[in-house]
Amino acid sequence: MDVISVIRTKRDRGRLSDEQIDWVIDAYTRGAVADEQMSALAMAILLNGMDRAEIARWTAAMINSGERMDFSSLPRPTSDKHSTGGVGDKITLPLAPLVAACGAAVPQLSGRGLGHTGGTLDKLESIPGWRASLSNAEMLDVLRGTGAVICAAGDGLAPADKKLYALRDVTGTVEAIPLIASSIMSKKIAEGTGSLVLDVKVGTGAFMKTIEDARELASTMVGLGTDHGVRTVALLTDMSTPLGLTAGNALEVRESVEVLAGGGPADVVELTLALAREMLDAAGLPDADPAKALADGSAMDVWRRMIAAQGGDPDATLPVAREQHVVHASTSGVLEILDAYAVGIAAWRLGAGRARKEDVVQLGAGVELHAKPGDTVVAGQPLMTLHTDTPEKFGYALEALHGGILVGATDATFEPKPIVLDRIA
Amino acid sequence: MDVISVIRTKRDRGRLSDEQIDWVIDAYTRGAVADEQMSALAMAILLNGMDRAEIARWTAAMINSGERMDFSSLPRPTSDKHSTGGVGDKITLPLAPLVAACGAAVPQLSGRGLGHTGGTLDKLESIPGWRASLSNAEMLDVLRGTGAVICAAGDGLAPADKKLYALRDVTGTVEAIPLIASSIMSKKIAEGTGSLVLDVKVGTGAFMKTIEDARELASTMVGLGTDHGVRTVALLTDMSTPLGLTAGNALEVRESVEVLAGGGPADVVELTLALAREMLDAAGLPDADPAKALADGSAMDVWRRMIAAQGGDPDATLPVAREQHVVHASTSGVLEILDAYAVGIAAWRLGAGRARKEDVVQLGAGVELHAKPGDTVVAGQPLMTLHTDTPEKFGYALEALHGGILVGATDATFEPKPIVLDRIA
Repeated sequence: MDVISVIRTKRDRGRLSDEQIDWVIDAYTRGAVADEQMSALAMAILLNGMDRAEIARWTAAMINSGERMDFSSLPRPTSDKHSTGGVGDKITLPLAPLVAACGAAVPQLSGRGLGHTGGTLDKLESIPGWRASLSNAEMLDVLRGTGAVICAAGDGLAPADKKLYALRDVTGTVEAIPLIASSIMSKKIAEGTGSLVLDVKVGTGAFMKTIEDARELASTMVGLGTDHGVRTVALLTDMSTPLGLTAGNALEVRESVEVLAGGGPADVVELTLALAREMLDAAGLPDADPAKALADGSAMDVWRRMIAAQGGDPDATLPVAREQHVVHASTSGVLEILDAYAVGIAAWRLGAGRARKEDVVQLGAGVELHAKPGDTVVAGQPLMTLHTDTPEKFGYALEALHGGILVGATDATFEPKPIVLDRIA
Repeated sequence: MDVISVIRTKRDRGRLSDEQIDWVIDAYTRGAVADEQMSALAMAILLNGMDRAEIARWTAAMINSGERMDFSSLPRPTSDKHSTGGVGDKITLPLAPLVAACGAAVPQLSGRGLGHTGGTLDKLESIPGWRASLSNAEMLDVLRGTGAVICAAGDGLAPADKKLYALRDVTGTVEAIPLIASSIMSKKIAEGTGSLVLDVKVGTGAFMKTIEDARELASTMVGLGTDHGVRTVALLTDMSTPLGLTAGNALEVRESVEVLAGGGPADVVELTLALAREMLDAAGLPDADPAKALADGSAMDVWRRMIAAQGGDPDATLPVAREQHVVHASTSGVLEILDAYAVGIAAWRLGAGRARKEDVVQLGAGVELHAKPGDTVVAGQPLMTLHTDTPEKFGYALEALHGGILVGATDATFEPKPIVLDRIA
């Protein structure tokens, strides 16, 4: 087997054989296939595609590149959630303790943010003392003790994906459905969850800009999960505007705690409950009542215990950015567009995100919204507050917002979008 | 400017701007763009193409990555030839001294073989003492003193191309017309020749398998040369069967000397004269008579002086491989097919070529043909002799020939192909 013949096969629109896929993933993991060879192959896959059987084999090869975890010793059924990433998407924070409060075990291996979408681990690290890195034994302890754990995936899980993801990130080969689907699913299957709910975002702030692309990605992932014995369901959800009223790290933790306290923005609550119901149903607990667990404080109890079990202080004051800048409405009318991508880029430029993996995020930075699409605004009223420790970035952030805010006529009729656009099982 | 946006532009079928091209070539040469990023871009170019203006700018950027040579101080007009590579293509060896004997100066910067096509420098290195590497000053001296020089391109010439060519070779991105055309023409234009004749090979033994692809490559290169003030003409020539009766290093030198002595195979003589006439015409010497220069020994005189000027002994005995194996005709009839690719791979496996740049070639190895397509053969007669220092490779070489030789019925009518298929100016 040689790598050039594998690259040529896909370059010339052929299909990769099982042997070619197994070999190239293994050789790349071992370092026998070089980065420049894998990136050429990734570009050929992006442009020429892979069929279902190729994607399944590619995913299996990535799973086989490392260890598989096993939660079968737990007394509770396991359920996990994965979001393809959006702006203000803090859902994992209230969702994991909520589902645990309803009787499932939630082993939530999460990632860090890159680009304009935030990362769950970055958000939680704004809680003083909280640790993202746990050994497998520590992870199992937290999960057993509290019902939920949110932590970084260990190095042993799908190392081929880890290496390939970092490569795709710097070579313009992220946006390929076969590669996105196999990357997500190899980690989730290796993690050993019994059921999985996918939150596939659609819209300007998401990887998938159209419902058709999102549907293709979702059905590819549902097929991969099902083939590997993981009960998998996908919700397609709107990402044309940010989720909730905050995009940032500490800002989103604060909002998540509001939701766990029974309050919080309606869209965040609605999506949290929709995903919780799917997770509980997939875990074989269809009679659980997540709305009750939010209202009676049992979800908040799990949250506090989970944060404390990972070294965090749930009562600590969260970091606040040193400087604020308020953006005002320039005209009166109905806020028609508040673009997710524009807000995501603004939050990123304010310091909430990172451009390179090694960058440090600002815990207090981000965007706080005072109005959402459909709201009537008056000229001069605050539309949003920008937070940063580096005020010299305000201009750069405001530039990102240019064109992302549209206030229409006062009598404009606004058609609100549902949050859940489709369900694929 | 950032490299991912450049990659995305081409990935998404856009056209690269002048600024993007200038930046990415310069940054790659400096090492600011990594190999894995350039290979992803190369694959995107291979699959999505570049238009004429993009190819022109890409070529100009590669020229500008290094020094440009200048032969305007020479009293003679300069003319150069480039072949896209074939099996048994030793034409440069008799051609350069022949054209010099007719009054032009021939600065022939050549390469080494890679894969199944041989390299001019590898062939000449079978002459004891001959040196391929000359300083710019030495090169000019040989050219001034003998009228012709065949040597390796210096490191200062189009360094971006040197780096990119090595990368394409290991990433399955060689076969892209925009990249092939810009690679060849950047070196030839930087070299500073006044006129250039391109020998674009077509057929199984060539990069270009079809006349349409060859025509596109030829017209792209002619356009690039003309735009840079180099009088450029291309001949499309047949590479469905090897040129002449030898494929190898010392074997081809021996055949080239036969041509210079007024003998040699008819096809080699015909193509040498056709290319010589084009070079002399492009150099403004349309009345020169290359057939006479072959017949009267003046081309041979230049050859001997040129070889000696680079340290070689034109009278030395050439290396001979340690072992020979004769392949016999299995049936009687007309030899209809003697496939260039099959013979090229056999010669390569016998040790005449290299799989990696750092490999050493066997000077005596190769294939010697005893019959050519159109010849009538009798069962049991020798068809070819295989030469190697590593006889354990005979089986591997014979495997390559399997299916590459076809003897038809004795009364079969054979339609001989012309050598020159088309001319593009």
